[in-house]
Amino acid sequence: MAQQARAIRTRRLILESAATVFAERGYERTTIGEILVRAGVTKGALYFHFASKEDLALGVLDAQMLDEPLPPQAVKLQELVDQGFLLAHRLKRDALVRASVALALDSGATGVDRGAPFRAWIDQVSEILTVAKARGELLLHVDVTDTAELFSGAYAGIQTMSQILCDRNDLTHRVSVLLQHVLPTICTPAVLPGLDMTEARARQLALDYDASRRRREEGNLADTPS
Amino acid sequence: MAQQARAIRTRRLILESAATVFAERGYERTTIGEILVRAGVTKGALYFHFASKEDLALGVLDAQMLDEPLPPQAVKLQELVDQGFLLAHRLKRDALVRASVALALDSGATGVDRGAPFRAWIDQVSEILTVAKARGELLLHVDVTDTAELFSGAYAGIQTMSQILCDRNDLTHRVSVLLQHVLPTICTPAVLPGLDMTEARARQLALDYDASRRRREEGNLADTPS
Repeated sequence: MAQQARAIRTRRLILESAATVFAERGYERTTIGEILVRAGVTKGALYFHFASKEDLALGVLDAQMLDEPLPPQAVKLQELVDQGFLLAHRLKRDALVRASVALALDSGATGVDRGAPFRAWIDQVSEILTVAKARGELLLHVDVTDTAELFSGAYAGIQTMSQILCDRNDLTHRVSVLLQHVLPTICTPAVLPGLDMTEARARQLALDYDASRRRREEGNLADTPS
Repeated sequence: MAQQARAIRTRRLILESAATVFAERGYERTTIGEILVRAGVTKGALYFHFASKEDLALGVLDAQMLDEPLPPQAVKLQELVDQGFLLAHRLKRDALVRASVALALDSGATGVDRGAPFRAWIDQVSEILTVAKARGELLLHVDVTDTAELFSGAYAGIQTMSQILCDRNDLTHRVSVLLQHVLPTICTPAVLPGLDMTEARARQLALDYDASRRRREEGNLADTPS
């Protein structure tokens, strides 16, 4: 376990270093050598975790996906709301998540499959919507794919705008506005009043996420011999 | 008038060249010299229109705004719909509009006010919503600023996603989906059935826009001595 915890930390260190260098130099101009220097790891350690620069990019892109499962909710659509709020929190607290989104939007990063995170988010939202539909939470006319794509695309845009206009300070508010503008057109009138799309909900989710993350990190540390 | 028509064309040629070089080299690395070579104009001609590289960037950013006023509609919110469809058409047909959006989203373009086009779009949508509100088309709880920001940000995101996933082939469909998901939460039930948010509307607008543009170009040509 100690070895596994160390491996997880090394992998994360390499990803963070790669993300930083991609952001500073642009993906195209970045070399593996620069990432090695930044991470302070050996070539062997890097190639143990990542086969190539493209593989590093995919690792960075993947870092924007939620790193632990969402707590299940009685109303499935609440999980869609929670997912949006949690990503906003992670964008604010975690430089690797920010770098991941920046790489997906870097039109200079040719040779990287920048569609991968979009497809992953669309899949994740589609899964939630499909369950919500089966439970009768959605209006009959809702097309799961169209709505999942709309959420993923619209979210990407409002976080970009929030970043450019105010360094993401108002991102939680904007996510709340997005949810409150879209949820009423997809869910049944019976479900709507039970959804909490307020910034207070976002704050509570952020506290819970940070506490859970601290517990995991302490767990990893406990595995390391002192 | 002939001189004015020539000046308009030269300005456009310089902007297109600047946009192309920004897209190829990245804004930061682009020099005025490279833009001069691409445009095939003299230094004097360029500096007659643009004071600096930043000024050129602002000109490129401005090119995404509608270049002619929207035809007024009996229902004001129809203009919001039409604006979204027209921008989708212009993104597909005009490389300068694409370059403008790409520059606004290029996180490497430091020193450029990338917030400018977002603020311009927010202002334009706000104006439409303010008139719609005065005419009683909006639900009472609608916050014009929140909704205008949501439209501008969400649009930026869905066009980026559409570009990455399928080179903007489905952009008109995605814009229609965005409108159909958001308009019902902001407009009164009396106004909603009168709004045309279909792709057929988008096709008609595109035809009208192209015809009007052709007329303007022919007008400019007629002004030029043969």
